[in-house]
Amino acid sequence: MKEIAGGVTSAKGFEAAGAEAAVKYKNRKDMALVYSTVPCKVAGTFTTNVVKAAPVLWDKQVVETSAFAQAVVVNSGIANACTGKPGMDCCKSEAEHAGKLLGIPAEAVLVASTGVIGMAMPVDRLCAGIEKLVAAKAATPEAGLDAAKAIMTTDTVHKQVAVEVELGGKTVTIGGMCKGSGMIHPNMCTMLGFVTTDVNISKEMLQKAVSASVVDSFNMISVDGDTSTNDTLLVLANGLAGNEEITAENADFKAFCEALDYVTMYLAKKMAGDGEGATALFECRIVGADTKENARTLAKSVICSSLSKAAIFGHDANFGRFLCALGYSGVQFDPENVDLYFQSKSGRIYIYGEGIAKDYSEEEATKVLSDEEVTIYVDMHMGEAEATAWGCDLSYEYVKINADYRS
Amino acid sequence: MKEIAGGVTSAKGFEAAGAEAAVKYKNRKDMALVYSTVPCKVAGTFTTNVVKAAPVLWDKQVVETSAFAQAVVVNSGIANACTGKPGMDCCKSEAEHAGKLLGIPAEAVLVASTGVIGMAMPVDRLCAGIEKLVAAKAATPEAGLDAAKAIMTTDTVHKQVAVEVELGGKTVTIGGMCKGSGMIHPNMCTMLGFVTTDVNISKEMLQKAVSASVVDSFNMISVDGDTSTNDTLLVLANGLAGNEEITAENADFKAFCEALDYVTMYLAKKMAGDGEGATALFECRIVGADTKENARTLAKSVICSSLSKAAIFGHDANFGRFLCALGYSGVQFDPENVDLYFQSKSGRIYIYGEGIAKDYSEEEATKVLSDEEVTIYVDMHMGEAEATAWGCDLSYEYVKINADYRS
Repeated sequence: MKEIAGGVTSAKGFEAAGAEAAVKYKNRKDMALVYSTVPCKVAGTFTTNVVKAAPVLWDKQVVETSAFAQAVVVNSGIANACTGKPGMDCCKSEAEHAGKLLGIPAEAVLVASTGVIGMAMPVDRLCAGIEKLVAAKAATPEAGLDAAKAIMTTDTVHKQVAVEVELGGKTVTIGGMCKGSGMIHPNMCTMLGFVTTDVNISKEMLQKAVSASVVDSFNMISVDGDTSTNDTLLVLANGLAGNEEITAENADFKAFCEALDYVTMYLAKKMAGDGEGATALFECRIVGADTKENARTLAKSVICSSLSKAAIFGHDANFGRFLCALGYSGVQFDPENVDLYFQSKSGRIYIYGEGIAKDYSEEEATKVLSDEEVTIYVDMHMGEAEATAWGCDLSYEYVKINADYRS
Repeated sequence: MKEIAGGVTSAKGFEAAGAEAAVKYKNRKDMALVYSTVPCKVAGTFTTNVVKAAPVLWDKQVVETSAFAQAVVVNSGIANACTGKPGMDCCKSEAEHAGKLLGIPAEAVLVASTGVIGMAMPVDRLCAGIEKLVAAKAATPEAGLDAAKAIMTTDTVHKQVAVEVELGGKTVTIGGMCKGSGMIHPNMCTMLGFVTTDVNISKEMLQKAVSASVVDSFNMISVDGDTSTNDTLLVLANGLAGNEEITAENADFKAFCEALDYVTMYLAKKMAGDGEGATALFECRIVGADTKENARTLAKSVICSSLSKAAIFGHDANFGRFLCALGYSGVQFDPENVDLYFQSKSGRIYIYGEGIAKDYSEEEATKVLSDEEVTIYVDMHMGEAEATAWGCDLSYEYVKINADYRS
């Protein structure tokens, strides 16, 4: 497997576009299209929030009942959540309009939205945007980039990645894009993530690969602890790579899963590092836990802690906050048996062990915590299980962005 | 029952003091003493964090095994958490020194600490501070106030309250003080809270009253979601009011519990409203829930949500964030069946119902959200259960305080 340049248009048969539709933002692309020239198998994971946005309900139905999918229409600016029946009608109008223009059934069109909750959707502007998207769609890297930029809200950078993997002599490509960067605390799903691949795979095995892939990627990141109403990850597979169809957990399936995991992990980390207001990617790596589930819980507790996040922002070696967050995670352990390290590209420092602070240099600790990627590494000395979670620091900018998001 | 002026020195037989000990802060009182002239029954609740500060371990033992308690020694500045054996030795030294000077057993002395985790305790300065405290102790309101001020860390105001209640013709007094204001997310306990009362009550009934009282008070507040290593609530009862000893759940017990609840609720709300960096007390009131437990879970989910807290700070009627937080709380409900209101002293506005935004005035909504106490009122229409939780907004100042807390 190797990483290549590109994104959602890298795999064979996929086209994309971005367009200015003025849904809410002005003077920027705010709608995106992902389109496959041939029908695709589709798998998805969605928010566990009881309050589900209309596009989530639409897409769940497409994933579960449609024979195939072939296009995804996305807008940023307004979330189409808490919008009642008009919100559901809007999804239908978008799908019908795109389906008509693309010559595919409305039931093969997925929709996704991100932005302000509770605001009414401007159906006319969305449909006008779809016309622009269909006219502009192309299989080029530029078109993929346009799409990745159009789905951004408070993101500061677009997020895309692509990889190639050989399956039975055939080159299979997987490309993906996603957007963060607030209300990020995915649970069995993510914010908006779109992955396209030309792999030939059964729908059942595709869903199995996707469901497994989110557990250690999107489900291990958090920006603010708020699980969105709109979290959606969609994976489209059109089979154009020509590999023998994957229908069981064989070597090809394993190789595909590894490549897919690379894509989801890459996108998830990008999302965490570009969390609203973030100045650093904040990683917590747990080793030596008694169970995988406990390792995950411990890692997430640390990266979700407001006080830990503020300490990272301040480059402050206030290690007690990380221990405190481990302690209230719900996992039982003996604090006297825990070793805690700070690490980054500037080095690795042993901070706490045997129940007490080690004799470390504050200056060096501050240096390590000042890098753009900081890891709190914790050995629980209870077993063999490991997990890693990713978040970001808590900055003034986060408050600024969110105290005045709608204006 | 009526509220009276005063605090921990209001009940008969209680003395207090504050003193400058330079534990970590300079030029301010940073140690406090609460002392009863006669032995007390004692009850307590403590942090559920696996990482427990040394004073928590010391006090648990006193509450569970000592025949009586008679004094509490508190310091601010350093938390005596993650301090290993030297930390436990420090508690013992403090108790022995105070016991010797006060002429009571070391096992009758409770200790409490709040401040930076992981820093070594300056035992000599603490013992010197205890000498000042014992010399200064008095039964006056001024001495109670000195104690309430000495336990503050990032608090902007001291927090104390006192009430009187008649039990069988005798006046029983309850006084209390507490400190916030960061790492506040108590779980079956609180940050530091101290309540003194002259009620005559059995130890068993006192603990029962205290354990019940924290559920709807301290356990329903959150500043930052971080459950501290040091959370402690101690209640001392010396019996000097002369009421018939309460040994069962009779009318006197009920009247005492009501008065105690008033004190704990008052202190809890003060703590939430003075959360680090807070500009507003942020209340969520849930009515019509199916169970009390679900009502509590829903209310806490809203006041803990970073995005909801940031919206309160920005006076932004971004109601979707409150619905989102209800939705990911873990409680099942139908979003179409929820009514949501904003209320404050400036009025009450119907914001969301039947699955969609109501036709409210943005200007009026902003006005309501600009008050110092703001309530999100939610009717779930599922049953009769109610609960209220209190938090605060998320401000630049919160980040500032916590990015640089140790310096």
